[in-house]
Amino acid sequence: MTNEQFKILEKYMLDNVSEHAHDSLHIYRVLNNALIIAKKEKNVNYDILVTSCLLHDIARKKEILDPNICHAIEGGKMAYQFLIKEGYGHTFSEEVQKCITTHRFRSNNPPISIEAKILFDADKLDVVGAIGIARTLIYNGALNEPLYYLDSELKIDLRSNFEAKNSFLKEYNYKLVKLYDKFLTKEGKRLSKHLKKVSKKFYNELINQITIDNVNEYLKKLN
Amino acid sequence: MTNEQFKILEKYMLDNVSEHAHDSLHIYRVLNNALIIAKKEKNVNYDILVTSCLLHDIARKKEILDPNICHAIEGGKMAYQFLIKEGYGHTFSEEVQKCITTHRFRSNNPPISIEAKILFDADKLDVVGAIGIARTLIYNGALNEPLYYLDSELKIDLRSNFEAKNSFLKEYNYKLVKLYDKFLTKEGKRLSKHLKKVSKKFYNELINQITIDNVNEYLKKLN
Repeated sequence: MTNEQFKILEKYMLDNVSEHAHDSLHIYRVLNNALIIAKKEKNVNYDILVTSCLLHDIARKKEILDPNICHAIEGGKMAYQFLIKEGYGHTFSEEVQKCITTHRFRSNNPPISIEAKILFDADKLDVVGAIGIARTLIYNGALNEPLYYLDSELKIDLRSNFEAKNSFLKEYNYKLVKLYDKFLTKEGKRLSKHLKKVSKKFYNELINQITIDNVNEYLKKLN
Repeated sequence: MTNEQFKILEKYMLDNVSEHAHDSLHIYRVLNNALIIAKKEKNVNYDILVTSCLLHDIARKKEILDPNICHAIEGGKMAYQFLIKEGYGHTFSEEVQKCITTHRFRSNNPPISIEAKILFDADKLDVVGAIGIARTLIYNGALNEPLYYLDSELKIDLRSNFEAKNSFLKEYNYKLVKLYDKFLTKEGKRLSKHLKKVSKKFYNELINQITIDNVNEYLKKLN
């Protein structure tokens, strides 16, 4: 890939990325994660990998406007068409399409090529550890969702089932904690082990700071 | 204080608290922190302390509507008037007013009584550690502010001066890191030491996950 080619792909990405959790900062972080993982793998086609990373979320905006659209499938199609138009060959464009189509976890459509597996892990690394927590909290704020709810007895509502009201604690227990066993590459698995500890440590400290047992103890003593 | 009196104060608080960072969850956490600190202090008047904690942010909504209003000074006045109306004596109501007036850091108006010092520290404990980070991030999201900015060379913009655009990293470096030497009570100081480590650890892990040196390294190799 030439610098000029990178700039064209980057511009197409910047023209299409969405706001908040999947902004261009996310794209650059995923590309960075992918390059870290790729160093530990053999026979990686960097052109396919870098192109796939840059373009993997280009259909997010479409999915937000119409939730029936899957941004992974639609993004794969958009990337294929864009690359063909830019003069890339069918095989290259199809490989990129496959990476993008399979970057979203669906058991019936797993990543096959090494580039697809790397993109999958690189994207997941941005939902775990400190950045996973930070992105989730910013997203909670944007949607006006609270950190947590208290029940009528001033205990933290730790339910994370589908019916529970949306909050950071629900999202953490319903989704974030379940990502750590989904990694596919050796380096992805290694990095995620550390990030799991980071995440758990922060979560435990947060629970410690929001637990108000002393208030309940004080209230029990009142007449 | 009787349970009935607590409920009346609690209702007045719930009727007056604002959204987001200073919601009722914050009030209960501050009360909890105050009760923890009070256990380590002597001659604490719990009625003054608990009342001050419950009512310390009742003028936040007024301050949001008119930034010329200081929620600490106005909240103190509102609390005094409410307490007098509820039949509390002048001395008690004035002590509560003093606690609320001085809970906001102003060098010309420091907390004097032990209850005022405890409220001050209890409130600060909710801006540090894991909860301080979580509240800040939710607030960033609500105001549509990003985690950070990249400069034109894809380096993280770490400027935290007044002119820098608002982001989580700016708020962290401009405000959050500077709170740890402001605690007044022995227990507040002790707790904040641990929370400083928690905060720093999370921050370092976040910086590690958002630094994209591998992207820059890759770009340098392109023709």
